Amino acid sequence: VKGIIGMNFGIIGSGAVGQTIGTKLIELGHPVKIGSRDPAKLQEWQNKGGSGASTGSFAEAAEFGEIIFNCTLGTGAIEAVTLAGEANLNGKILVDTSNPLDFSKGFPPSLTVCNTDSLGEQIQRIFPNVRLVKALNTMTANLMVDPALVPGDHDAFICGNDATAKETVKQILEQFGWKSIIDLGDISAARTTEMLMPFWLRLYGAFQSPIFNYKIVR
Amino acid sequence: VKGIIGMNFGIIGSGAVGQTIGTKLIELGHPVKIGSRDPAKLQEWQNKGGSGASTGSFAEAAEFGEIIFNCTLGTGAIEAVTLAGEANLNGKILVDTSNPLDFSKGFPPSLTVCNTDSLGEQIQRIFPNVRLVKALNTMTANLMVDPALVPGDHDAFICGNDATAKETVKQILEQFGWKSIIDLGDISAARTTEMLMPFWLRLYGAFQSPIFNYKIVR
Repeated sequence: VKGIIGMNFGIIGSGAVGQTIGTKLIELGHPVKIGSRDPAKLQEWQNKGGSGASTGSFAEAAEFGEIIFNCTLGTGAIEAVTLAGEANLNGKILVDTSNPLDFSKGFPPSLTVCNTDSLGEQIQRIFPNVRLVKALNTMTANLMVDPALVPGDHDAFICGNDATAKETVKQILEQFGWKSIIDLGDISAARTTEMLMPFWLRLYGAFQSPIFNYKIVR
Repeated sequence: VKGIIGMNFGIIGSGAVGQTIGTKLIELGHPVKIGSRDPAKLQEWQNKGGSGASTGSFAEAAEFGEIIFNCTLGTGAIEAVTLAGEANLNGKILVDTSNPLDFSKGFPPSLTVCNTDSLGEQIQRIFPNVRLVKALNTMTANLMVDPALVPGDHDAFICGNDATAKETVKQILEQFGWKSIIDLGDISAARTTEMLMPFWLRLYGAFQSPIFNYKIVR
């Protein structure tokens, strides 16, 4: 896909989402540095990833990446992106996959922000020169990079203020295997996809499996 | 369908949703009384509906119905159900199709309640002996009673605390033509389907048409 062959990717957050996306990007031929508060715990991921895989601090990952993925938990997202450093992020595409879920009061979690604001909008306001694209936050980690886990047609959603950035992210998602990617508009649409998470959790409960996705039929 | 042949239905609210559902129920052979603050404006609907169609106050519609649909705007729902009268509703199934949308600050509307509560839960708390089922609040009015308007497979969602009431509502939805009806659990799931509305409005904006629906693919 044009424009994103062999680009350096930085990943903020070393949980299941960060490692899953990192592995997929390496398979696609992109060098990846995952940033973590504790990079030592990424040794196994790095060994599997080979020469394209590296680890470091949040700031080192952000500095390394031409495109950055935020893959932290929502409650830690703003702190992690702040630690990554505005200077390391400005002018770059930041793909925010996080959801503002508050697990402090048990399951199911509520949202820390919603309805009239969103985590995506908060990050964009704090970092106005970052080219933020909200994406992949409506599904389980494995599905993000392997849509064929769910049979048939189903959708990924993106939003953000920068049309060129969205076009690039769309190309990355196509490299991941996505065939249907719906652009919901500017970053304020982040509140609408983040607000899908409580519904997603109910479906997860009903199906007893996270391997499902939304298809908008029309 | 067993149990709901020729039952009397009451409808609270005389807008597009109330009239559309009322017309469909009459076509299915059920007598319907729509309740309105201004029943005179329902004359055309009543004339088209024939002998099965009648109109009255919210209270008269609730008294008439063995099963009641709430089809008001969300901002007026609690007042309308209160006017319908607890004594006219207690022990009966109330199908709540409303969404707590606040249009007072322009478009797109925000929600008046969400995340840790919902309009469905509020109504159930105020009327604890009503057998409340939240349903059909995730789609445009015409689609509620004619799922074939959108081709192929797609889903309706229900929730509520009374399993028998949900089974009856499922049968009504099947009479409307629904083939896939997903039970999300107790009435607290109402917050998750009501929170779909901002997402729905974004899709409506992207497609410039309300004729679409969700399919959960797995």
